Amino acid sequence: MSVESVESRNGNYPGLGIGQPVGVAILGKGTVGSEVLRLIQEFSENLEQRIGGPLEVRGVAVSNVEKHKNAPEVQGIELTDDARSLITRDDVDVVVEVIGGIDYPRELVLTALKAGKSVVTANKALVAAHGSELADAANEAGVDLYYEAAVAAAIPVVGMLRRSLAGDQVQRISGIVNGTTNFILDAMASTGATYEEALAEATRLGYAEADPTADVEGHDAASKAAILASMGFHTRVTFDDVSCEGITKITAEDIDAAKQSNQTIKLLAICERLYDEDGKTKAVNARVHPTLIPNDHPLASVDKSYNAIFVEAEAAGRLMFYGNGAGGAPTASAVLGDLVGAARNKVHGGRAPAENPYANYPVVGFDEVATRYHVNMTVNDRVGVLAELTRKFAEANVSLSAVRQEESGDEAHLIVVTHKALEKDLRDIVDRLSRHPDVQQVNSVIRLDA
Amino acid sequence: MSVESVESRNGNYPGLGIGQPVGVAILGKGTVGSEVLRLIQEFSENLEQRIGGPLEVRGVAVSNVEKHKNAPEVQGIELTDDARSLITRDDVDVVVEVIGGIDYPRELVLTALKAGKSVVTANKALVAAHGSELADAANEAGVDLYYEAAVAAAIPVVGMLRRSLAGDQVQRISGIVNGTTNFILDAMASTGATYEEALAEATRLGYAEADPTADVEGHDAASKAAILASMGFHTRVTFDDVSCEGITKITAEDIDAAKQSNQTIKLLAICERLYDEDGKTKAVNARVHPTLIPNDHPLASVDKSYNAIFVEAEAAGRLMFYGNGAGGAPTASAVLGDLVGAARNKVHGGRAPAENPYANYPVVGFDEVATRYHVNMTVNDRVGVLAELTRKFAEANVSLSAVRQEESGDEAHLIVVTHKALEKDLRDIVDRLSRHPDVQQVNSVIRLDA
Repeated sequence: MSVESVESRNGNYPGLGIGQPVGVAILGKGTVGSEVLRLIQEFSENLEQRIGGPLEVRGVAVSNVEKHKNAPEVQGIELTDDARSLITRDDVDVVVEVIGGIDYPRELVLTALKAGKSVVTANKALVAAHGSELADAANEAGVDLYYEAAVAAAIPVVGMLRRSLAGDQVQRISGIVNGTTNFILDAMASTGATYEEALAEATRLGYAEADPTADVEGHDAASKAAILASMGFHTRVTFDDVSCEGITKITAEDIDAAKQSNQTIKLLAICERLYDEDGKTKAVNARVHPTLIPNDHPLASVDKSYNAIFVEAEAAGRLMFYGNGAGGAPTASAVLGDLVGAARNKVHGGRAPAENPYANYPVVGFDEVATRYHVNMTVNDRVGVLAELTRKFAEANVSLSAVRQEESGDEAHLIVVTHKALEKDLRDIVDRLSRHPDVQQVNSVIRLDA
Repeated sequence: MSVESVESRNGNYPGLGIGQPVGVAILGKGTVGSEVLRLIQEFSENLEQRIGGPLEVRGVAVSNVEKHKNAPEVQGIELTDDARSLITRDDVDVVVEVIGGIDYPRELVLTALKAGKSVVTANKALVAAHGSELADAANEAGVDLYYEAAVAAAIPVVGMLRRSLAGDQVQRISGIVNGTTNFILDAMASTGATYEEALAEATRLGYAEADPTADVEGHDAASKAAILASMGFHTRVTFDDVSCEGITKITAEDIDAAKQSNQTIKLLAICERLYDEDGKTKAVNARVHPTLIPNDHPLASVDKSYNAIFVEAEAAGRLMFYGNGAGGAPTASAVLGDLVGAARNKVHGGRAPAENPYANYPVVGFDEVATRYHVNMTVNDRVGVLAELTRKFAEANVSLSAVRQEESGDEAHLIVVTHKALEKDLRDIVDRLSRHPDVQQVNSVIRLDA
């Protein structure tokens, strides 16, 4: 194994010196940006002590200066709509990117890194799509790239993977990393509401955006899964590598059925290793889908819009982290923590451990992963159907851990829980059964946390 | 505010250079030391990639070389009983201290730091007693001092306070940080066992040591509370500053009464700020005592020997961390994470943020802290006793949130739950009541998590 993939400089990160100010440029002044500015002012003396020199905000880039110029947190601070000029100023050392979007912040972050500025970003979509390009640019320039806020806000899971577990082997990461969908599923479970009703309530309370697609289709969680898998497995996993199924098809009946079997449905981001016969890692997978978990699983009781992440590591065992996974203040807390780290390195010299994809495992799609299915079908109520349909599973080499038939009037429900099998085989048999003459309808397919 | 308390060097931490080996001396080869050695070998290629150069174990210091020389994890490694010579070798860069005890490891760690070696220790008693002396020596020499494993093993709470929350203001830390006592309290609650029975079971299963004093009297938790308070409040808090009450007086009746009121008794380490009238921090306190918490509190469901720590910060809100708080492998995971950090800094240059007690708040004893009491007294069963005794609380300026009287035969139990009041006032009134002619006995006093 070579160490060439590690940073290419040898202790060659000189500091500005104790007491020297650290210039900061902030890109974006939405909820998070405003809170970051407010906290920099409120905590200024503490931050100076922790960094070794004062933070000085050189400017804030916004698209519309007029709109923001009267905000209390920018009084005495230069507002500009020329982000490019701001980030390349000589007296800017660290750039904080809290704009959102992908293409425009990508260009700005790359410009900043290439100009020798360390970058702190809260932008999960950017990191999940272009993390490796950004990491390469940061390595090239010998500066820091931090993005703790991109995953679960102030829950310090990125830092934990980056540093605390640096001497361990992460085996699996699974977690609730999207507050909107957790709020919706929790509301459905606790009130019996339909998906549409719970979504409306989430929108009304500000937990869901006007266009909730990114949340409810699992895209937001998929970005976070990509980042977690990349850090945890030292392998570049991008958004496009993540298989993703949202919660829009989850019905009140699914929730009710889960409840009756002492289970809960959560939208989980799952990052796992696939092993060969010798127990060696042969590939990694990251995915997002609604998942049935037993009620006594610690993630089952994570309610409202909270986030929680389980990390299983070879020596550490199971660790869980829980907290507010979104919101202006928690996200700003994570940004500030990163900013202190980046600024401290600017003052004292040195550099944080970067993304380090040396392991470079193949990233496989969902089809290659072994999982478990909970299938609910409406079937014809005639003698022999149960035997006939369960035989079809056996023929497809999918063994069953439970089969239950429920009669109601003319129709019967067949509920099947499989043992672990390849996703593609499971999908295939369910697909074939959906066309079987005795199957009226496949009502739901929900995976178990295998 | 000056920044002189921060490290005294300016980016002057040159690295050995990429690909250079990092020499490691390991002091102690008990459960943790052996596991550290095993993991260094198992993960060697991964560690090299993450550090930027190979870890090379220069030697392991033990008190009895003969006893250890055939262990598989030390084959090909020098064993010595001369720890002082080992740690001052020129080719040793990082020293791992996993001996235990205080005076001897203190001397070794100081010697190592002064010789320019970075130090990783898992020794909570050492850090809680002499952390400031060690931190000063590390600052003086410009090297790293890491001790993630000293608190809750692989639960990365030290790193989180050191880095992730570096841009936030920690308000309160409360947690279950001792697995032995949590096992005992959980066993009492789930089986109805007495304290003595549960302790015997814990000993039988290896959760309690032959001499369980340090655990059951809360001393182990107090060391961890001192470390957490020091990191969280940027103020030096030592073991001697921590007020400490163990679990030895908790009875099956206490557990049962808690259960009947939907509460659970947990041994909590609590670190909190005391505020003046303007809401500014005027002092900090750290303490350990059995605590009544509601069953829906997330710490209530932490069972067996697990640890969990709640951190409340101004911007981040409430964060919880959960996992194995003890054991060879989880402790070794934390040691290895620190070792990678220290070794990486040796290769690349740079230095981790050190303990930084700039805030230097007064540390006040328990007497000055406002808390709440749950008091159970056996009182004479005569008319007017309830009124008389509750009047005594009022006279002492302690207001009550609940009063309940239970008759059984000739005697009556009076159960009183107070509002928040100064600990010294609460203690004082309970002490006076214990001598009141109508009070036969004070059965228990348990604090609430106020």
